[in-house]
Amino acid sequence: MSVLLEGTPNKNLVLVTGRAYPKLADDVAKQLGIDVLKTTQYDFANGEIYCRYTHSVRGADCFVMQCHTQPINKNIMEQLIMIDALKRASAGSITAVVPYLGYSRQDKKHLGREPISSRLIFDLFTAAGADRIMAVDLHAAQSQGFFNGPVDHLMAMPLLVSYVKSIMDTSNVAVVSPDAGRIRVAEQWAAQLDGGPLAFIHKTRDIRHPNHAVSHRVVGDVKGKDCILVDDMIDTGGTIYGAARCLHEAGAKSITIVATHGILSGPAVQRLKDCDAKRIILTDTLPIPQEKRLPNMTVLSIAPLLAAAMKEIFTDGSVAHLFKVYPKEQIGKDFLYA
Amino acid sequence: MSVLLEGTPNKNLVLVTGRAYPKLADDVAKQLGIDVLKTTQYDFANGEIYCRYTHSVRGADCFVMQCHTQPINKNIMEQLIMIDALKRASAGSITAVVPYLGYSRQDKKHLGREPISSRLIFDLFTAAGADRIMAVDLHAAQSQGFFNGPVDHLMAMPLLVSYVKSIMDTSNVAVVSPDAGRIRVAEQWAAQLDGGPLAFIHKTRDIRHPNHAVSHRVVGDVKGKDCILVDDMIDTGGTIYGAARCLHEAGAKSITIVATHGILSGPAVQRLKDCDAKRIILTDTLPIPQEKRLPNMTVLSIAPLLAAAMKEIFTDGSVAHLFKVYPKEQIGKDFLYA
Amino acid sequence: MSVLLEGTPNKNLVLVTGRAYPKLADDVAKQLGIDVLKTTQYDFANGEIYCRYTHSVRGADCFVMQCHTQPINKNIMEQLIMIDALKRASAGSITAVVPYLGYSRQDKKHLGREPISSRLIFDLFTAAGADRIMAVDLHAAQSQGFFNGPVDHLMAMPLLVSYVKSIMDTSNVAVVSPDAGRIRVAEQWAAQLDGGPLAFIHKTRDIRHPNHAVSHRVVGDVKGKDCILVDDMIDTGGTIYGAARCLHEAGAKSITIVATHGILSGPAVQRLKDCDAKRIILTDTLPIPQEKRLPNMTVLSIAPLLAAAMKEIFTDGSVAHLFKVYPKEQIGKDFLYA
Amino acid sequence: MSVLLEGTPNKNLVLVTGRAYPKLADDVAKQLGIDVLKTTQYDFANGEIYCRYTHSVRGADCFVMQCHTQPINKNIMEQLIMIDALKRASAGSITAVVPYLGYSRQDKKHLGREPISSRLIFDLFTAAGADRIMAVDLHAAQSQGFFNGPVDHLMAMPLLVSYVKSIMDTSNVAVVSPDAGRIRVAEQWAAQLDGGPLAFIHKTRDIRHPNHAVSHRVVGDVKGKDCILVDDMIDTGGTIYGAARCLHEAGAKSITIVATHGILSGPAVQRLKDCDAKRIILTDTLPIPQEKRLPNMTVLSIAPLLAAAMKEIFTDGSVAHLFKVYPKEQIGKDFLYA
Amino acid sequence: MSVLLEGTPNKNLVLVTGRAYPKLADDVAKQLGIDVLKTTQYDFANGEIYCRYTHSVRGADCFVMQCHTQPINKNIMEQLIMIDALKRASAGSITAVVPYLGYSRQDKKHLGREPISSRLIFDLFTAAGADRIMAVDLHAAQSQGFFNGPVDHLMAMPLLVSYVKSIMDTSNVAVVSPDAGRIRVAEQWAAQLDGGPLAFIHKTRDIRHPNHAVSHRVVGDVKGKDCILVDDMIDTGGTIYGAARCLHEAGAKSITIVATHGILSGPAVQRLKDCDAKRIILTDTLPIPQEKRLPNMTVLSIAPLLAAAMKEIFTDGSVAHLFKVYPKEQIGKDFLYA
Amino acid sequence: MSVLLEGTPNKNLVLVTGRAYPKLADDVAKQLGIDVLKTTQYDFANGEIYCRYTHSVRGADCFVMQCHTQPINKNIMEQLIMIDALKRASAGSITAVVPYLGYSRQDKKHLGREPISSRLIFDLFTAAGADRIMAVDLHAAQSQGFFNGPVDHLMAMPLLVSYVKSIMDTSNVAVVSPDAGRIRVAEQWAAQLDGGPLAFIHKTRDIRHPNHAVSHRVVGDVKGKDCILVDDMIDTGGTIYGAARCLHEAGAKSITIVATHGILSGPAVQRLKDCDAKRIILTDTLPIPQEKRLPNMTVLSIAPLLAAAMKEIFTDGSVAHLFKVYPKEQIGKDFLYA
Repeated sequence: MSVLLEGTPNKNLVLVTGRAYPKLADDVAKQLGIDVLKTTQYDFANGEIYCRYTHSVRGADCFVMQCHTQPINKNIMEQLIMIDALKRASAGSITAVVPYLGYSRQDKKHLGREPISSRLIFDLFTAAGADRIMAVDLHAAQSQGFFNGPVDHLMAMPLLVSYVKSIMDTSNVAVVSPDAGRIRVAEQWAAQLDGGPLAFIHKTRDIRHPNHAVSHRVVGDVKGKDCILVDDMIDTGGTIYGAARCLHEAGAKSITIVATHGILSGPAVQRLKDCDAKRIILTDTLPIPQEKRLPNMTVLSIAPLLAAAMKEIFTDGSVAHLFKVYPKEQIGKDFLYA
Repeated sequence: MSVLLEGTPNKNLVLVTGRAYPKLADDVAKQLGIDVLKTTQYDFANGEIYCRYTHSVRGADCFVMQCHTQPINKNIMEQLIMIDALKRASAGSITAVVPYLGYSRQDKKHLGREPISSRLIFDLFTAAGADRIMAVDLHAAQSQGFFNGPVDHLMAMPLLVSYVKSIMDTSNVAVVSPDAGRIRVAEQWAAQLDGGPLAFIHKTRDIRHPNHAVSHRVVGDVKGKDCILVDDMIDTGGTIYGAARCLHEAGAKSITIVATHGILSGPAVQRLKDCDAKRIILTDTLPIPQEKRLPNMTVLSIAPLLAAAMKEIFTDGSVAHLFKVYPKEQIGKDFLYA
Repeated sequence: MSVLLEGTPNKNLVLVTGRAYPKLADDVAKQLGIDVLKTTQYDFANGEIYCRYTHSVRGADCFVMQCHTQPINKNIMEQLIMIDALKRASAGSITAVVPYLGYSRQDKKHLGREPISSRLIFDLFTAAGADRIMAVDLHAAQSQGFFNGPVDHLMAMPLLVSYVKSIMDTSNVAVVSPDAGRIRVAEQWAAQLDGGPLAFIHKTRDIRHPNHAVSHRVVGDVKGKDCILVDDMIDTGGTIYGAARCLHEAGAKSITIVATHGILSGPAVQRLKDCDAKRIILTDTLPIPQEKRLPNMTVLSIAPLLAAAMKEIFTDGSVAHLFKVYPKEQIGKDFLYA
Repeated sequence: MSVLLEGTPNKNLVLVTGRAYPKLADDVAKQLGIDVLKTTQYDFANGEIYCRYTHSVRGADCFVMQCHTQPINKNIMEQLIMIDALKRASAGSITAVVPYLGYSRQDKKHLGREPISSRLIFDLFTAAGADRIMAVDLHAAQSQGFFNGPVDHLMAMPLLVSYVKSIMDTSNVAVVSPDAGRIRVAEQWAAQLDGGPLAFIHKTRDIRHPNHAVSHRVVGDVKGKDCILVDDMIDTGGTIYGAARCLHEAGAKSITIVATHGILSGPAVQRLKDCDAKRIILTDTLPIPQEKRLPNMTVLSIAPLLAAAMKEIFTDGSVAHLFKVYPKEQIGKDFLYA
Repeated sequence: MSVLLEGTPNKNLVLVTGRAYPKLADDVAKQLGIDVLKTTQYDFANGEIYCRYTHSVRGADCFVMQCHTQPINKNIMEQLIMIDALKRASAGSITAVVPYLGYSRQDKKHLGREPISSRLIFDLFTAAGADRIMAVDLHAAQSQGFFNGPVDHLMAMPLLVSYVKSIMDTSNVAVVSPDAGRIRVAEQWAAQLDGGPLAFIHKTRDIRHPNHAVSHRVVGDVKGKDCILVDDMIDTGGTIYGAARCLHEAGAKSITIVATHGILSGPAVQRLKDCDAKRIILTDTLPIPQEKRLPNMTVLSIAPLLAAAMKEIFTDGSVAHLFKVYPKEQIGKDFLYA
Repeated sequence: MSVLLEGTPNKNLVLVTGRAYPKLADDVAKQLGIDVLKTTQYDFANGEIYCRYTHSVRGADCFVMQCHTQPINKNIMEQLIMIDALKRASAGSITAVVPYLGYSRQDKKHLGREPISSRLIFDLFTAAGADRIMAVDLHAAQSQGFFNGPVDHLMAMPLLVSYVKSIMDTSNVAVVSPDAGRIRVAEQWAAQLDGGPLAFIHKTRDIRHPNHAVSHRVVGDVKGKDCILVDDMIDTGGTIYGAARCLHEAGAKSITIVATHGILSGPAVQRLKDCDAKRIILTDTLPIPQEKRLPNMTVLSIAPLLAAAMKEIFTDGSVAHLFKVYPKEQIGKDFLYA
């Protein structure tokens, strides 16, 4: 008899999701031609989370999606618990898919004795058992270095740029960064839009009233321009609102607000209403419920991008080639049903 | 000149707390004769937690208290973030103090493809940077082994037994475990109460109606006895309520409910009201707000025990010697102000 | 020319064994239809162990069996050394198979300054290079959490229950736990045997002679019952002997002793003889030599269960589905040749 | 006899240095009132580095300085080897002091299949045995998060701002960032200089000649202003040179170039000569040999800052309080002898 | 009130020992002026080891001695369990003291698919929680590199050389290595003995009878010499016996056998008797029971060296300075009572 | 729909190389029938290394070759950076191929407070992300134990022996070790050459002029013999030169120098010229430029051995079987084009 029992190598992809935004996982699964694997999930009376997979995941390449929306800490914890269960159930590999990665703004110490919570989140993923992270538009690209392993960092810009080009004439645009820290992104947008002019909003604190008045000033020329105000996320909308006001005062012809992550906390929706933008373009890396969807807001689906990246990972292809600008017809078909 | 710069060895203890139950930390600090170190803590609009210590913690033995009460996942995350900040601020050592440790009941897989969330919590503490864990009455003593380092596992039993002895005649007691899994604890209580009789409640599912009827049955003799019903925690109170009903039916003379952790979720308070117990004795490892405090309920302060253990740790003394039964007069003075 | 050299993915299972109980590995190999891979193994003059595999294990899923029987520390060390050799020989994955896991009873600190040796054993497996653990009936299910990875925890209960049902009428049984700590298991047995009555033996120390007299008392009703006395292991047999004596005194009609692990140290065999049980049912997770096999003892083979689990692991199937109760005919065929 | 041998707690600081820039270590040692600990260091014939400490470092808080100047890879390796030797010689703690941290610009993946070399460097320090990192003005503050432990991130800005204020009238300044990515730093400078105007240089590629022409454009108003052109480092000087040319064309009155790290590779000195700046202000985080020191260049000593931080660390003080703006008289005394 | 509770830094040394050779620990303790800390230690019926410290070790520098004598695997496991208990009892630091380190000869792979058991032993120490290793005369000095931390590698040579010089005239000696692999050690001895001649025994296999005949040949000149045959250990004595026979045949005047570790397995004592050496000089890194002590055998105590090293470690002194050759009078006083 | 997306398991080998000696990688690739994967590699102005792979490596078994030749530290760092990039690009496995492993001679502490740089190098490989190491003729076989994973340690001896046998009559040879530390290797050579006589060179320091004169002495008989002087490496050639001089004086008939690694630093080539050897035989584990190739020097190609080992690893074959002595005809074909 042989000392070797020979078997058939197999390779399976499994997709599971936390309870934060199951629709996005369903959208991704549809793109992949599979169903999301059912998971028994509920909270105990004291708030502890329970989960159990209803089907074997042994040996499979598992993707665990979770949107880090409110209640954000619970959603992160749920994802960690799901990863632990996969690890103990002999998953072949575990990829944490976080379309919007929570705490990504706390990526450095501004002052002594602060945490670096973004690094901590990566460490928690590692502790739970994740082998790889997939995320869209991290607040700082440096965060990839917080993980000791592969990070598939997806960029929504090609999708957003393609969409913008499909709906507006870009010959008179100026790309504007809402603050000094994100001009690099605006530069990339300007390059994609054939090198149009660039501006940013400079916030200065009034030194006579240090703690309370902030004045915004446009640096660069935006007069008569169709301004595209780009940011990675809109949280309370304060920065975007201030920037839009400032652009109007500086004589902008129109304002199109573009951002990947629509967090839309607290006063955000009201501010977006009040800021007199012509268009607001977001993706659904976070759930945007119907009541927050303004008439001038378009929410593009991020699911095709996530599904495409998963396929590349699963087939040992290249994620890098995904970041091209999409042709107009594909935009209509795939990305607009978010 | 010398190649050595000589310094003065020093040794400081610092106590910080999350926002879940600051009063308990204040109580502990008072016992230690210090103030809790002020920490700037708030939530961002999207629920992310921020913290910063207002004073240097460099080189100090830091104790980070947090009660794993609701919202439990947020509270755990806050503690992790606080630990990360301590680590990066050069704390000398970091002890996570969790009077009630969340997820401690999820300490094994009952079925395939479940997490072992209790182990995960220990791993998260390690990932964040904790060197040591201090907890009171873990659901299973085995959980200590989930941590690769010292766990100071404090027992509330001496405190509870001392109190019980100080308020009631124990010559006619029977110690009762509310289910089959915790008879060991009841045995320890019985030993402390001079070897009185023991019983437990046996739950059986009616096999003709498998999913819905459960019958409780007392195994052991409780007729005419002053029953002490002991458990480690009261969550929704269902188990305790069922046990108490069952004891009444079996002819118990009186029922005294004793538990370390008063989680008191959902219907718990109503059930405690309805179960006709003579007394309910808890500790404040978790906050028990005034509206949940029934007239027949006594909440003993756990702060003296925590403070004593911290002192032993700090002075390289022995935590083991703390677990004696307290003399009656000390009970009155220290433990009754929770 | 291509930059990729393409190969054929392959998948092989290899089974190796320490010298503690090679027959069990042979039994498992037979079930798998392979031979155990020959290993050169001997002791140096000073007791150091040497091992070397006689065949390449590169890339294979390797299962390293060892029974933690006497001399237990040597047997554990041999398994660790075998794992180290597999790791350095480029094994694809390494599963430590420990039908009975040594030190599993030392799973918590009863007193300060004790080790948690069971956790240590898991840590040693990790240090040597094991990716996964397979064990039968761990003393406490919590021990799974001592390992930071998958633990395939097999249960012998279906096998034992199936066998019991195949040899005796279970309409008059009472399930008895020999002490207060293992009633949960008795409850599971009772459920499998259609909800029969339950009892346990309560040991109390005579408080007048603290260090020497222990009295046993049955809690629950066993009079006239066919008692099934269940435990996970029989070591010196003291607990089982005391329990059996106590059941006889309480009027039990017959006693059937059932346990997974027959350690049978020191006086165990004599005590089993003396305790007047009708039947003793064990498995061969540990070798039970002919001279310890009493006439009323049945030793069921654990090999089919181990082999089935290995097959499920190797083919990315589900280990969970193995824990059904077996039909009578399979019992006869597979499990009785231990 | 006692079971405890009591000893005297002690606490020593030791400073050692690689061979890249020993003078800086001597300067720091002088500030601390000690000598650098002598280390035997040489290269073997094939370029391998040897080191050995000539004095015991057992238990001491060791600071290992190395400047990541050319040959940069060798200097990094020397520091790693020195750390390994400290670890094996039982150093109490090991702080890697890297005034300029090599590879800090490679802090993210710009394209797929790139390394994140800055994270790697931190990982190498960890692997060698460093407990803590001390660095000045990391290229991105996020890099602190690449280390799983305390990073004492020192800022030269207070020193540079203080010096600038001590030598020029700042009432007519404009702070200019040489590219879009570092405007945040310029904003901080502007805030320190009482809120003066801000500008940045926007580089655009000429889309008709994609691979070769780049045009620079000032965004913001600099006409007639005393421009302070701030960057974290000057490597080949290309960016600074282009920015300075651009400012001259835009009508700047004068240009003062300020940077922490004077790498000054290849054509840098010639470009600094050619760019017509009034002043160039650097620190000596890297050695700046006499032949590279232009007449209009001032090199401030970073040693007092490093020494002060070491003292705070050693005495469990606060590093945070070091980052104040220095009074004019201290500038003269301490920082000008680099 | 202060936020800091100030304490008194303290520093204690504790010595504990496994049961393999407690006398050696007592000898060391005596040199240190303390008692060995009592440890409750016994074996369970199935051979599992139990240990518990009878006194708090919190914060202390703990030295855990164990001799890796027979039963060697059990003794190693006992030391690991003791380390685990120290770690969980909050020891300040843990040094595993192994006068003779088991498995140190299995330090490389001679053939494919062998373990490197010596590295494994170091990994097990790390897994259990040891911070530092102290050992005497490792078989290969390279083994120090198997540990990722400080190894205090003590050398018995100064002690042995000093003793040899104190008892014999060394003007006519030749230093002989018993095989080709240990000539380096012989060279060091020769250097210590004023550069006398050197020889080694060359074993060749008779190529006509490959598996059975080995001929020994002296390489170097030993005729009429007082040969000092040096090795690190004597296990079965085969190598030494063969070498001694060979030296006699080659005309050696006398033979003095010197080795650090007297394992003395199986036929060793008989072979030492039969080999006609004038003197045999060993240390007691391993217990040498009275019945193995030949009349011409001297066993030097290793305790003073171990105690001196512990003191240096404890007081942050230098272990390196211990390796001088001892003056004759000290030999008599300290080392001869083993 | 299914919850599993099924894929096709694939298996690819990729070979990349640092810039130290690309020809060797090309030679290996040719043997494997593939091209080396192109990598963009250059130095920044300040010496920092940049690399990027031009083709996806996702899931592939990657072999990263680098020769640790001068500048050795830069070459090591380049290999580490390449490994980091592979890890982050989702390589399936990463093998660091180091034909000559730098720092392998610093494998132990000769004195206190030295590093163990060879262990450090292995740790750096681990930190960067290497799963496996492949090296030829490590200075000490023990170094394999410095890595916590598989080390494929290739031996050039069969190649060198085969070549020697193909070019000279070995009936009159004596195998000579140039110093006392490497006689084991000479013994192996002697065994391969049918058990010929053995000798070594004993260096003694003249005790009257301790720091400067060294006398060499042959131990063993070489008169009239064709001496094969074997070493693992020739660095500055000092040892070999001294040995050759000594052999001439002792009446050797001819000298053939054989070594695996031709480092050939500084005066090495001149010394090899001057030492009057008949032949010098090396391999090209390190580049040997044309100007260093003496007329009597043969450089054998190591590429076939490396390629064969990679194939065995890739196909889960056995590396062990490679170390046979090669038949004469294969020598001519494969190994002589280095």
